[in-house]
Amino acid sequence: MTQLPPEPLVPNNTLITKTPEEGRALAITLARHSIHAMQKEVEVLVAGRPQYARDPMGLIAASHVVAVEFATIAAANNYWR
Amino acid sequence: MTQLPPEPLVPNNTLITKTPEEGRALAITLARHSIHAMQKEVEVLVAGRPQYARDPMGLIAASHVVAVEFATIAAANNYWR
Amino acid sequence: MTQLPPEPLVPNNTLITKTPEEGRALAITLARHSIHAMQKEVEVLVAGRPQYARDPMGLIAASHVVAVEFATIAAANNYWR
Amino acid sequence: MTQLPPEPLVPNNTLITKTPEEGRALAITLARHSIHAMQKEVEVLVAGRPQYARDPMGLIAASHVVAVEFATIAAANNYWR
Amino acid sequence: MTQLPPEPLVPNNTLITKTPEEGRALAITLARHSIHAMQKEVEVLVAGRPQYARDPMGLIAASHVVAVEFATIAAANNYWR
Amino acid sequence: MTQLPPEPLVPNNTLITKTPEEGRALAITLARHSIHAMQKEVEVLVAGRPQYARDPMGLIAASHVVAVEFATIAAANNYWR
Repeated sequence: MTQLPPEPLVPNNTLITKTPEEGRALAITLARHSIHAMQKEVEVLVAGRPQYARDPMGLIAASHVVAVEFATIAAANNYWR
Repeated sequence: MTQLPPEPLVPNNTLITKTPEEGRALAITLARHSIHAMQKEVEVLVAGRPQYARDPMGLIAASHVVAVEFATIAAANNYWR
Repeated sequence: MTQLPPEPLVPNNTLITKTPEEGRALAITLARHSIHAMQKEVEVLVAGRPQYARDPMGLIAASHVVAVEFATIAAANNYWR
Repeated sequence: MTQLPPEPLVPNNTLITKTPEEGRALAITLARHSIHAMQKEVEVLVAGRPQYARDPMGLIAASHVVAVEFATIAAANNYWR
Repeated sequence: MTQLPPEPLVPNNTLITKTPEEGRALAITLARHSIHAMQKEVEVLVAGRPQYARDPMGLIAASHVVAVEFATIAAANNYWR
Repeated sequence: MTQLPPEPLVPNNTLITKTPEEGRALAITLARHSIHAMQKEVEVLVAGRPQYARDPMGLIAASHVVAVEFATIAAANNYWR
């Protein structure tokens, strides 16, 4: 089994981003890195990809997590107001 | 496979909208673009559409994500008070 | 297939209601209109109704969405304090 | 089919309660009345009861909704501080 | 069937705790007492225990409810700052 | 059956961390310790590990809990602003 290279849970160690677009990208990254913290084997991750990304319920469940992460990031950035 | 054309995660790069109605539309868009960020193949998206949109549990799960996105957008807009 | 008549995502384009009771009714409406935005075919909606409304897990999932929508509406109204 | 008697979505039309205990009871009532708003047939509700209340996943899903409703009620009451 | 002895929904009728550790324990208790409010038969609860506690999805679903309850308790305690 | 050694629900009994990275690690720990509070048998936990960590839906569900825990921790730390 191939292990993922080490990566931080929070890239750049901050929730502050310049724009909503970057905040949204960070939300996706946080969710992805959570999953990597629980499953580091590349082959398992690669095998799982079609299982959720070709299943509408998998995509909806994943987008739900992104929405929750984004709520935190948006609050951290005072909604980029 | 046909790839979706590139699109931003947050259209216009802002959470601020003029009205609740526009905020709600943005919530739906954010959820949809999250899914596009994870699955860019048009054929897969088109094939998945009847799977969730004809299944009440799929529609409820998707509307849950919209509700979470909208909570963030509404807070960003100070609830359009 | 019969299409739903057009309807706004947010009736009256406001989250502000006079009372908690009206806020709660709005939460149900928002959730329902989200679903209509994703599925406009009346026959599909009618066919789906018994699938979730006679299934306790469907009712619980739908009530979860109402709870999330209501949290936003209640905050918008400063909890009608 | 027997119809439930009419009931408000929010008993007493307020989120304010004297105590956390009463707030918690209100959270359960709000969740229950949401479900009644979607399904008014007593026989369906009675038949569904053992399906979720004897299934740990059903009880966990229902308790999740109560937790979300309670979060709103607790905020409305400034956490009874 | 044996009935659970009566118990409050919110022990001590307060969300205020001395420490995060006690707040976390309260979150678990609130979730558990919600479930008891819906299912009071000891035999059903005992039979359900292995169904969720030996199933990773059951444990994850239950821990999700604890996380939501804890969010409320932590806010009530101003995060024990 | 081997029992897990006793562990606190909240390590160091605080939600305050120096950095977002540490806050994120705490979120994962809180979720894990919730699960340990419900299931202390090491063999059951070890057996369950591949069930959720090799199943994309299991990983997504677990990352959802981490996102909710992190929202609380981030608010506690005023988003490390």
